[in-house]
Amino acid sequence: MRVAILTSGGDAPGMNAAIRSAVRSAKNLNWSVFGIKRGYRGLIYGELDEMGSRSVSNIIQHGGTILRTSRCKEFETDEGLQQAKRTLEAYGIQALIIIGGDGSFHGAVALAKIWDGQIVGLPGTIDNDLFGTDYTIGYDTAVNTAVEAIDKIRDTAEAQERFFLIEVMGREAGFIALEAGLSSGAEEIMVPEIHSELGEVHKRLMQGKQRGKTSSILVVAEGNHEGNAYEIGNKLKNLCGSDYRVVVLGHIQRGGSPTARDRILATKLGAYAVDVLAEGKTGVMVGEVKGELTTIPLEQTWQTKKPLDPYLLRLISVLDT
Amino acid sequence: MRVAILTSGGDAPGMNAAIRSAVRSAKNLNWSVFGIKRGYRGLIYGELDEMGSRSVSNIIQHGGTILRTSRCKEFETDEGLQQAKRTLEAYGIQALIIIGGDGSFHGAVALAKIWDGQIVGLPGTIDNDLFGTDYTIGYDTAVNTAVEAIDKIRDTAEAQERFFLIEVMGREAGFIALEAGLSSGAEEIMVPEIHSELGEVHKRLMQGKQRGKTSSILVVAEGNHEGNAYEIGNKLKNLCGSDYRVVVLGHIQRGGSPTARDRILATKLGAYAVDVLAEGKTGVMVGEVKGELTTIPLEQTWQTKKPLDPYLLRLISVLDT
Amino acid sequence: MRVAILTSGGDAPGMNAAIRSAVRSAKNLNWSVFGIKRGYRGLIYGELDEMGSRSVSNIIQHGGTILRTSRCKEFETDEGLQQAKRTLEAYGIQALIIIGGDGSFHGAVALAKIWDGQIVGLPGTIDNDLFGTDYTIGYDTAVNTAVEAIDKIRDTAEAQERFFLIEVMGREAGFIALEAGLSSGAEEIMVPEIHSELGEVHKRLMQGKQRGKTSSILVVAEGNHEGNAYEIGNKLKNLCGSDYRVVVLGHIQRGGSPTARDRILATKLGAYAVDVLAEGKTGVMVGEVKGELTTIPLEQTWQTKKPLDPYLLRLISVLDT
Amino acid sequence: MRVAILTSGGDAPGMNAAIRSAVRSAKNLNWSVFGIKRGYRGLIYGELDEMGSRSVSNIIQHGGTILRTSRCKEFETDEGLQQAKRTLEAYGIQALIIIGGDGSFHGAVALAKIWDGQIVGLPGTIDNDLFGTDYTIGYDTAVNTAVEAIDKIRDTAEAQERFFLIEVMGREAGFIALEAGLSSGAEEIMVPEIHSELGEVHKRLMQGKQRGKTSSILVVAEGNHEGNAYEIGNKLKNLCGSDYRVVVLGHIQRGGSPTARDRILATKLGAYAVDVLAEGKTGVMVGEVKGELTTIPLEQTWQTKKPLDPYLLRLISVLDT
Repeated sequence: MRVAILTSGGDAPGMNAAIRSAVRSAKNLNWSVFGIKRGYRGLIYGELDEMGSRSVSNIIQHGGTILRTSRCKEFETDEGLQQAKRTLEAYGIQALIIIGGDGSFHGAVALAKIWDGQIVGLPGTIDNDLFGTDYTIGYDTAVNTAVEAIDKIRDTAEAQERFFLIEVMGREAGFIALEAGLSSGAEEIMVPEIHSELGEVHKRLMQGKQRGKTSSILVVAEGNHEGNAYEIGNKLKNLCGSDYRVVVLGHIQRGGSPTARDRILATKLGAYAVDVLAEGKTGVMVGEVKGELTTIPLEQTWQTKKPLDPYLLRLISVLDT
Repeated sequence: MRVAILTSGGDAPGMNAAIRSAVRSAKNLNWSVFGIKRGYRGLIYGELDEMGSRSVSNIIQHGGTILRTSRCKEFETDEGLQQAKRTLEAYGIQALIIIGGDGSFHGAVALAKIWDGQIVGLPGTIDNDLFGTDYTIGYDTAVNTAVEAIDKIRDTAEAQERFFLIEVMGREAGFIALEAGLSSGAEEIMVPEIHSELGEVHKRLMQGKQRGKTSSILVVAEGNHEGNAYEIGNKLKNLCGSDYRVVVLGHIQRGGSPTARDRILATKLGAYAVDVLAEGKTGVMVGEVKGELTTIPLEQTWQTKKPLDPYLLRLISVLDT
Repeated sequence: MRVAILTSGGDAPGMNAAIRSAVRSAKNLNWSVFGIKRGYRGLIYGELDEMGSRSVSNIIQHGGTILRTSRCKEFETDEGLQQAKRTLEAYGIQALIIIGGDGSFHGAVALAKIWDGQIVGLPGTIDNDLFGTDYTIGYDTAVNTAVEAIDKIRDTAEAQERFFLIEVMGREAGFIALEAGLSSGAEEIMVPEIHSELGEVHKRLMQGKQRGKTSSILVVAEGNHEGNAYEIGNKLKNLCGSDYRVVVLGHIQRGGSPTARDRILATKLGAYAVDVLAEGKTGVMVGEVKGELTTIPLEQTWQTKKPLDPYLLRLISVLDT
Repeated sequence: MRVAILTSGGDAPGMNAAIRSAVRSAKNLNWSVFGIKRGYRGLIYGELDEMGSRSVSNIIQHGGTILRTSRCKEFETDEGLQQAKRTLEAYGIQALIIIGGDGSFHGAVALAKIWDGQIVGLPGTIDNDLFGTDYTIGYDTAVNTAVEAIDKIRDTAEAQERFFLIEVMGREAGFIALEAGLSSGAEEIMVPEIHSELGEVHKRLMQGKQRGKTSSILVVAEGNHEGNAYEIGNKLKNLCGSDYRVVVLGHIQRGGSPTARDRILATKLGAYAVDVLAEGKTGVMVGEVKGELTTIPLEQTWQTKKPLDPYLLRLISVLDT
């Protein structure tokens, strides 16, 4: 068996742990393993290197991806896909492991139409916006990074008695905002999934002030219908006259040494991807749902919308008192 | 409704987040809330203070417990229990929330026999050794603390090309050892649940050395049948002549700012404990099993042994190559 | 002796350690100590509380300031100053310790003209832009926070092979940028003290790319003559067509648990401020210069410009290869 | 010019930053640079590789040493030294940069007697016990690691109202103990340089308890005349009957990503070592004293005892109230 592995799209902490686990699990079955550089770009341009068990030593603790990653427009063209297929055939690859998010899985589905090797996806994105797994690789680290940052900002908010508006990542999903916001005791959390009226947000903040609160933190997800953090800050200023300090956490949420939870999830899913290939499956993403390792057709990972935890959503207003 | 809350036994990061969530959820229902100091000791000696929503401000991010905790021998006597009952009656307490581990729950069951208020337990222990919840409050932080420590020791192990033997906490359970060991790429992991032959461990380590490994890390749980880390180190030295550096991580695993995962779990369980009391339940521990909030009779939390994840156990040898 | 203490201006990690040390050192001499809330605002409005040794327990490790802080426009008026003087007289305060930056010291000098108590300043600002001390309280923590953030961004820069432009704090000084940039191996560092030609910066980055560099990090201080990070990013894009990801680290640099270095510096200077008051000095800032505790007239702290380390400046280009 | 570089003795965070800076500074002068593996062992056995500027990319943030290190008994023999000399001659090495502590510098002085190339030492040890530099590379990181650990233990000490005895590294010097102890607000600090009477320590702790303290932390340096932490704990128990929890921080203090301060110091000294070689000096250690880059004969680094800061020593009792 000859298997190749690549990382694609935005990098996420834990991708290296997933690579390590998949490579070593495959070597444990005496398979040949090839690492593809720079995601689909390397597949098109034939950037493959054979990997052994020792080539993934001492990487489990590092953020980023030793295979590098990219977003590759060419792979969305017929020509690009055909070239990728030729690379796979040239190297005699029979199975492909793809670590990435929904954009990467779209590419995988397109490739599956013209190439008849096996394809298995691993959910690697900090955004947690893939159906078919309770958590994605990188999400736990990103939430913890956001929480550590908000804890620091809370020091200043309290010391200076100010309002802060903090934007976290998540593309069009509010997972990071919800969990990072609740974890850091944020007074308000705005997620794309729920249409928060700025007027209502403003009113609740003023009520907090009347109850004696001297500082407040609003956590806002990217992709909010009211705009980005600066725009929301301006709208709130127009409503209430208060000055909001805006902090956009940005790319620090993508990097860093993965948390234990991300390393464990990545390690399990990397090994399970090899199990699934050994069973002959294809066109699926491996995931962990309610503590069980599972597979789901790649298309479903983006066609079904993964909901936010309603119990957590309810707690936002209960806990802000 | 008048509810009291206490923390008992070893402290665990996230206890404050649980207190905060329980207090605010109870205040949200307009209940009266009392904080009991020093666990069962404060219950016996009548150390109760009324708590409001603002008395739990700005504590979600701190380790330890603002209510303090203790191990209380007196509570194991009839006299101690009767005195505790008198305190509860004097304050008109109708329900008691107990955050702790199995020792604390033993006490709760004893109290329930003589006092007819409601009792709900929250799983607060770094050891994760309670049946009825996939994770206990504090466990995720302890694992991450252990992983960060082992990552640091790996730097030295690699630089100096040495063998290290690292003891982690867990009482008689191997949860921390298993997840911290796998997360940090440890070569060998010894858990109390599995009878590892030291001769076999030694043999595998020597094989690694022959394959070119210049350093190795063994993670050992407390409570191993072969003794503590120093004893195991001596036995291995006798077997192979190699020198093992021993590090006992100790109490650093108990403290520190809780991880996002622990804060979220504590926040959910604190609120759910209040839900459960409002439903009239008693004698149960709240927990999260396969993503669902659940209750389980207190006795079962220690009578049924929670197993280690067999998939993770299998991966130890697959990944050590 | 009756001494009062306040924190003023932007908060900085280590202010609490300085408060603790000053309070305990003063109590050790049996002085009465008063804490003033919210900086000069509290001085004007008479928000003073007596402090004992135990009122500063368990704060050395926390960011922010337990005394709160503010920027106070009223204190720049005669009326504000007179009101502050009346407060000091009403409480019988004989000496005032002010922890802050140059704005706060301007206020102190103005107060000294109408009030004849003793005034001693402590350098508390993350920017390190005060003459008369090699390091200010909070600077070391801010640099480490910036370095940890840039280390994380480096993971993504390497994985995605991108250029990143990272803006750090420092007002009009490049201390944070220079040390955080060198510490994180940044390819280019732009400080306000030196007029970097964007054309030259661009040229060197392109040369790096030709030598095989696939990612680069530019660290830019606030207050650069070329504008903020977004503006510089746009200018570079116009020059070279490359896309720069911009990250503004912002307020995370102000908070967080202080580093050991900041705790030690704050502890020494807090105690030394009391020594200096006991010696009868006034109108000075305490500092540490070349390892020696010293005093300097408050005016000089902003009138003389503290230079960047020329040896470090020289190393930027030596190390970028 | 052909220069070789090695790391020797215990590893210290920042060694990689020093290697990087020395290598790139030497390449900047168009010198040939060789990395010697495993310290003096590699010098004896001829393990040298040529290094370029890119061979030290992306290492500044990592603990340990990419060159590996060892303690080498053979280098203390004439035969070993002669063999080392032959290696240096075989490779045409004209200058040697040695990063290590006093054991390594003893070796360097012995080598200098039989080899006439230039030798420059860099102070690389977490213990800070070298005269001729205010700080050694690795010391700041070790202190911060110790402080973070003690902060965590403080959570438990407060929650459980216990006494903790924490042993930190430092060999026969109390630098880590003094700064980590003061930074973490320890009640007592025992350093080898000062003969603390256990009876006095016990008395002060009891006085603290009478003043209402419910927990206390004693920081003890390795190498105390009263024995290690376990022995001191037993002696105190015999004196006062109280139970002390003992934590030996151990090897976590050696590893981890270096702090900004250590990266800057290592970067400056690495570059300055090359400056010093270019000036023709030999037999010296580079250091930073009172903010100035300096050199000192290697012998003096261990012959003169570097004193602890008397101002900090005085503060221990002032601040414990």
